Amino acid sequence: MAAFATRTGKRVRPHAKTHKSPLVARMQLDRGAVGLCCAKLGEAEVMADAGVGPLLITTEIAGQPKVARLVALRRRAVVLVAVDDMDTARTLSDAMRAADLVLDVLVDVNVGQERTGVAPDGAGELAACIASLPGLRLRGIQAYEGHLQHVYAEAERRARWRECADRMLAAHEGLTKRGLDSEILSTAGTGTCAFAAELPEVTEVQAGSYPFMDSDYAQVEGLPYESSLTVLASVVSRQRGDTAVIDAGWKALSTDAGMPAVKGRPELEYVTKGDEHGGVRGARMTPGERIELVPSHCDTTVNLYDEYVCVRAGVVEAVWPIAARGRIQ
Amino acid sequence: MAAFATRTGKRVRPHAKTHKSPLVARMQLDRGAVGLCCAKLGEAEVMADAGVGPLLITTEIAGQPKVARLVALRRRAVVLVAVDDMDTARTLSDAMRAADLVLDVLVDVNVGQERTGVAPDGAGELAACIASLPGLRLRGIQAYEGHLQHVYAEAERRARWRECADRMLAAHEGLTKRGLDSEILSTAGTGTCAFAAELPEVTEVQAGSYPFMDSDYAQVEGLPYESSLTVLASVVSRQRGDTAVIDAGWKALSTDAGMPAVKGRPELEYVTKGDEHGGVRGARMTPGERIELVPSHCDTTVNLYDEYVCVRAGVVEAVWPIAARGRIQ
Repeated sequence: MAAFATRTGKRVRPHAKTHKSPLVARMQLDRGAVGLCCAKLGEAEVMADAGVGPLLITTEIAGQPKVARLVALRRRAVVLVAVDDMDTARTLSDAMRAADLVLDVLVDVNVGQERTGVAPDGAGELAACIASLPGLRLRGIQAYEGHLQHVYAEAERRARWRECADRMLAAHEGLTKRGLDSEILSTAGTGTCAFAAELPEVTEVQAGSYPFMDSDYAQVEGLPYESSLTVLASVVSRQRGDTAVIDAGWKALSTDAGMPAVKGRPELEYVTKGDEHGGVRGARMTPGERIELVPSHCDTTVNLYDEYVCVRAGVVEAVWPIAARGRIQ
Repeated sequence: MAAFATRTGKRVRPHAKTHKSPLVARMQLDRGAVGLCCAKLGEAEVMADAGVGPLLITTEIAGQPKVARLVALRRRAVVLVAVDDMDTARTLSDAMRAADLVLDVLVDVNVGQERTGVAPDGAGELAACIASLPGLRLRGIQAYEGHLQHVYAEAERRARWRECADRMLAAHEGLTKRGLDSEILSTAGTGTCAFAAELPEVTEVQAGSYPFMDSDYAQVEGLPYESSLTVLASVVSRQRGDTAVIDAGWKALSTDAGMPAVKGRPELEYVTKGDEHGGVRGARMTPGERIELVPSHCDTTVNLYDEYVCVRAGVVEAVWPIAARGRIQ
C-alpha cells in the first residue's frame, strides 16, 4: 500500500477498524500514511491515547454523550469527523464553540452504499452550512463505496465503481461551484483503491483490510495483497465419520461473511458446530492436532481477540495487544 | 432456576459460557448452584482466579499446551472434565499422575448432537478405561443435547428429547451394568431442563442462557424466563427512506442466530448494514435517538463486550466486568 501511494501520488489514510492496534497504526504512519481512519469514537480514543493521529472518524457522531466525548478527544488530538446532517453539524458547532475548539469536518456523501451520507446533489448545500458554522472547518468530502469492496469480478467491480465515481464527482462539483474548497476527497477501500487512483479529484484512500486480508477478500480479483491473519485451532474430540471437532466456533471466528478456509489445505472444509466448536471435513485428524484457519472476514474476527501473536518462519517474534478491540461506541 | 432446583430436586450447574462473569457465577452459587460449567479452559482459569468453583469443563481437553494448563488449574481448583476418547484419557492420566493430582472425569456421550461424545453403546467401555487409570476419578456422564434447546415447538422439542433420553439411559446402563458408579448425570440446557427433571437418573442440569435469554429463545415455547439483556444503540445518520442508521453492527451484535429484535417496539425491524452500522426500519428517527436491541443469541453477543451495565428502573446500579470475555482457548 505504501508502494501504491508512491506510484499514484494518492495519500493513504488506513482504516484502524480492521486492526484496532496502535502498533499497527504506527507502522502504517512510519510507511507514509497521512493519518488513520477510525470507525467509532471509542477506537479514536484508544488511538489518541497511544499518540496516533491525525484521526478521521468515518461514522457520524450524534447524541450528547458522544458529542461530549468528541470535545474531550478534540482537546488532545487532531480529529476530522464525517457529517451528513445540518442539525448534527449545528450541534457539533455549538459544542466546539463552547469549548473554544475547531473541528475539521468532511461532508459524508452517499455514493451508492445507501448507509450514511447525503445525496450527491445535497453535498454543496451541507458543505456551505458547515463552512458557515463557527467551531467547524470544512475540509472536503468522504465518499466511501463499501458495498463494492467484495465484488469478486474485477470488470463488474470497475463498472459499478464508475457509477460511484460519477456521484462522487457530482458532490465535488457541488462544493467547487460554490467556491468551497474540497482539499480532501477521501474514498475507497482495499478492493477499489486502484480505481480511485485514476481520478485526479481523489486525494486519499481509506483502505483497511490490506494488512491482513481474509478468505472472502482472497476471492476478489486483481488485488496484490496476501492473507496474513489466521486463527490457530486444535482438534479436541475423536473423529465422527468424516468430521473432526475443533475448538474454534462462533466465538473464535466471525461468520457474517461465511465460513473460514483452512490454510494450506484446500481439501478441508470448515462446518459450523456452535459457539465453542467447529467441524473440519475432509481428512482424518486426531485430538491435539492443529490447523490454521483463515477468517472469512478479518475485521469482525479481529474484534474477538485481545492479542496478535506475530509469527515469522514458525517463530513467535512478538505479541501485540489489540487495544481497541470492542471499542464500538 | 433456583426454584426449579428446589421443586424438582435436581442440581443446577449453570453454564458460565453465557455470562462469562465471576460475579454472576457467585450469585448463582449463592442461590444454590452446585458449581459452574465452563466451555473452555481459559474460561475456567478466570473463574478459578475469582474463587468460583467447582468447575466442570464441558469441552474435551487435548494437546500438550492445554494439558499443561489443565494440570496448573487442577493444582488450585476442583475441576471435572468431559472426556470422549481413550487416548485423551491416558494422556490426562499420565499428566495428573506425574503431578501427583487426581482429576474428576465425566464420560461425554453423544445423545444426538453429533458434535463431541462417544456413542451411547461405547460409554461403558470408555468409563471402565477411565476408572482403571491412575490420576483420574470417574464421576459419571455428561450428555448434552445442545441441538434441541432452540426447537421452538414444545411438543416437537419434547418428542426429540425423548430420543436423546433413551440414548442417555443406554449410556447410563453401560456404566451401571459394569458396576461403575454414575454419581453424576449432567445434561440439558435452558430449553430442555424441564424434561430432564422427569428422569430419575438425571442428577443435574447445565442451563446457561436463563439469566439473560435472547430474541431466539423468546420464540421457544414453554420457558418461564424473561429477557434481561439488551444492547443500547443510537441513531447516527439522517434517515434514508424508511431506514434509520444506528451505531450497532456485526461488532455489536452477533448474527449467527439472526437479527436482533428492538425492545418494546415490535413494529421496528433491524437490518444489516455491515460491521459498524445497523439499519432500523419502521419509524422516523432522528440522530441521537436511542433504542435497545435484544440480541438474537446471548452467548455470542456477550462475548463482544467488556462490561455489563446493570440497570433497574432506569437507574444504573452497577457495572460488572465480563472477565472471561474472549477466553475461548
